[in-house]
Amino acid sequence: NRFQCRSLDFERTVPNVVERKLTLNDVIEAQQFDRDTLSSIFEVAREMESIEQYSAGSEMLKGYLMATLFYEPSTRTRLSFESAMKRLGGEVLTTENAREFSSASKGETLEDTIRTVEGYSDIIVMRHFESGAARRAAATASIPIINAGDGPGQHPTQALLDVYTIEREIGKLDGITVGLVGDLAYGRTVRSLAYLLANYKDVKIYFVSPDVVKMKDDIKDYLTSNGVEWEESADLLDVASKCDIVYQTRIQRERFGERIDLYEAARGKYIVDQSTLDVMQKHAVVMHPLPRLDEITVDVDKDPRAAYFRQAKNGLYIRMALLKILLLGW
Amino acid sequence: NRFQCRSLDFERTVPNVVERKLTLNDVIEAQQFDRDTLSSIFEVAREMESIEQYSAGSEMLKGYLMATLFYEPSTRTRLSFESAMKRLGGEVLTTENAREFSSASKGETLEDTIRTVEGYSDIIVMRHFESGAARRAAATASIPIINAGDGPGQHPTQALLDVYTIEREIGKLDGITVGLVGDLAYGRTVRSLAYLLANYKDVKIYFVSPDVVKMKDDIKDYLTSNGVEWEESADLLDVASKCDIVYQTRIQRERFGERIDLYEAARGKYIVDQSTLDVMQKHAVVMHPLPRLDEITVDVDKDPRAAYFRQAKNGLYIRMALLKILLLGW
Amino acid sequence: NRFQCRSLDFERTVPNVVERKLTLNDVIEAQQFDRDTLSSIFEVAREMESIEQYSAGSEMLKGYLMATLFYEPSTRTRLSFESAMKRLGGEVLTTENAREFSSASKGETLEDTIRTVEGYSDIIVMRHFESGAARRAAATASIPIINAGDGPGQHPTQALLDVYTIEREIGKLDGITVGLVGDLAYGRTVRSLAYLLANYKDVKIYFVSPDVVKMKDDIKDYLTSNGVEWEESADLLDVASKCDIVYQTRIQRERFGERIDLYEAARGKYIVDQSTLDVMQKHAVVMHPLPRLDEITVDVDKDPRAAYFRQAKNGLYIRMALLKILLLGW
Repeated sequence: NRFQCRSLDFERTVPNVVERKLTLNDVIEAQQFDRDTLSSIFEVAREMESIEQYSAGSEMLKGYLMATLFYEPSTRTRLSFESAMKRLGGEVLTTENAREFSSASKGETLEDTIRTVEGYSDIIVMRHFESGAARRAAATASIPIINAGDGPGQHPTQALLDVYTIEREIGKLDGITVGLVGDLAYGRTVRSLAYLLANYKDVKIYFVSPDVVKMKDDIKDYLTSNGVEWEESADLLDVASKCDIVYQTRIQRERFGERIDLYEAARGKYIVDQSTLDVMQKHAVVMHPLPRLDEITVDVDKDPRAAYFRQAKNGLYIRMALLKILLLGW
Repeated sequence: NRFQCRSLDFERTVPNVVERKLTLNDVIEAQQFDRDTLSSIFEVAREMESIEQYSAGSEMLKGYLMATLFYEPSTRTRLSFESAMKRLGGEVLTTENAREFSSASKGETLEDTIRTVEGYSDIIVMRHFESGAARRAAATASIPIINAGDGPGQHPTQALLDVYTIEREIGKLDGITVGLVGDLAYGRTVRSLAYLLANYKDVKIYFVSPDVVKMKDDIKDYLTSNGVEWEESADLLDVASKCDIVYQTRIQRERFGERIDLYEAARGKYIVDQSTLDVMQKHAVVMHPLPRLDEITVDVDKDPRAAYFRQAKNGLYIRMALLKILLLGW
Repeated sequence: NRFQCRSLDFERTVPNVVERKLTLNDVIEAQQFDRDTLSSIFEVAREMESIEQYSAGSEMLKGYLMATLFYEPSTRTRLSFESAMKRLGGEVLTTENAREFSSASKGETLEDTIRTVEGYSDIIVMRHFESGAARRAAATASIPIINAGDGPGQHPTQALLDVYTIEREIGKLDGITVGLVGDLAYGRTVRSLAYLLANYKDVKIYFVSPDVVKMKDDIKDYLTSNGVEWEESADLLDVASKCDIVYQTRIQRERFGERIDLYEAARGKYIVDQSTLDVMQKHAVVMHPLPRLDEITVDVDKDPRAAYFRQAKNGLYIRMALLKILLLGW
């Protein structure tokens, strides 16, 4: 099928040599990235850090137009992509709420919308409420598609920035110990992260979550079959003391429907606070995909090990890198 | 009145010579365009095709600011205009839903809003829910106004791109046969198109529509008095076999109110599908203003005679041309 | 506290000499501006008038990104800021309705949002529904914050453009007589303006308002203790005949809740119309923050003393000036 051949195509002509040829046509899901591609993306992201910090107004993507097609609002993600494009001198067409406003409400198919929008732009960043929507868009479009989240499905750029942050903060990706805390059942962030971590050696993952939002079996099976050791624990402090990364997530109220009692019980169970910091190692960090409610207390912010705002900033570099690679090549 | 004198002013100093002077101050309605003006606009649109395809980042409109003042959301039209402006190096101020968000909700008149927005921009692209709103805006503004649709009234840039598409696809505008299919009563697209086609010689129009949405008498009278032959038909296949252009439109559910039964009967009556293609001539094309529901079946898309996505793209070139002409002159 | 030290810091090393050092880090409230700072801002605003009128596409702020974080829609104010940024060659990230769409709806604190958005931009223009929100944002952010209105609190750029307009129209700020008319209780515009006028000598203010929306005591006390003479009057014509500026405001229906009768009584009481113009002095002007309903009749617009659309345009120059100063220094 068309998506396959337009997706990631890795060809190592001479092993371990720079002549290897990476092709990246769309960014659809975390699983499409192998270790070498991740490493190459991170290299570009590092260059983007310098560009953002030291050059006033790069013109790398001058003349290029990115359309942000958001069927579901996500101000944070949208601003991050739009900032990335503009930091590189590119231009943006914005739809903040395509679902309500666009011809979709008149019954147009996603495919027809994509065929129209691709005539107006050079790359489409898309957020959709349906799992698989980004893949369908990529199968239709002749320009690159970046999945900025499709329903309960994937949010691959978040996963990329998470792994990039781990490398920047800890200095390595092999041999790390990661505690995933909070909503592991519905949080697509931790699910995508788990997929990406399976690319690295000697990774150990701890799952710490209320029973109602436990990590599902598909991810556990994937990790096991990819040689990643994992363990469930109910003791956050014990896990925190062993981990390089404590990755906290928000319990999503909207998943509990009428059962506010279950939500309240779940959300208060595992809080990262000063007592967590007290047992954490000096080099370890706290991460969070944001927004944060009270699952990390505000007093943690001032600790240098609080990495979540740096993590958000890394999202900018990763998105700059992806836009650069998809529009100009490596 | 002020609109008259700011509107299209054609003065042929020496007949049939390039020294003729065209003035275009606003784009308000299809009727303002005569044959010579259309031809000149299409010439500029052709240049825009080259600019869009071959030059990376034109700076033709650098330093110019377009405000999109949309009192009614229309993502497709808005993105098309904003892309046009940005492809020429111009900048954009956007309001995606001016009706709900703006001071209009506090009771400000359109005239006052225009007087304010003209202070912030160099050209205003306006969509409004009231027929005649664009004309009122043009009478107030000292900068150019483009009507991007005003209620049941006009949508002149759609009509221009339709005629441009016919010329690009068929190679001529005189002597063509056009089948207008679907919602002919409420669809402003086909009404505006009919006005523009009256500029050309030996045009024959067929109307094919369910009884509840038949073409109204005002257009029929206009065509007759302008020497355009027209005929109503209930036989889509017969019409399709004779036409250069089969122009299909969507039956708009919102026009039927509670009478869903009438809507359902109307929408299924004339579908363009493989059997329509089978009788169409080799050089003929299918057009549609989009969005499309199922009035053209998806299998038609792959036929080279399916011109509707090329038509959408032509909207970009027409809008680039209009912005160029209104801001820089011919 | 952090805001204090980042706020306006005026240090006059040699009295009355240009070597005085002005620092402007954020724009939070009218009270932060003293006479010298106002004068310096207005000087820059004058330069901005030339730039906007005579240079096609300034690149003064090229490479800079402004985020408009609007928790409450205000198309007029947003467009004014975005136009200002783009007229100087800068770029914009827009959120038209951050309250509904952003992670704020998931419970994120303003501080966390600011920490994220400051990673994507160089300056934040913020409108919020809560008084004090801009100050909180400035205390958090390491980039400049401009308050574009926070609830019933402040709207300092409106106050600045009002004073700038008075200077441009009347030619001086000392010794002027100003009639503030309409909603003086809830209108933050007139309250902020009163604060700023207290910087000047021999200012006389008349308050003309229906009883239900009279000027509150805090402002009266502030004026008195700052040597500004003020007087309440029920006679608009008498006041108009004495004033340099008749500053009319809209009675805000939303302040009256269920008491539509009180609203209707209040809104019709003081109307600026031809009879007002008839008694006004030749050099005097009518101002209004807009949007206007019928508190100024439309026939007033054509009188050269109707300054309200020029006033709106001055908002552009003031905002250009503030963006320039905050991003590049004086």
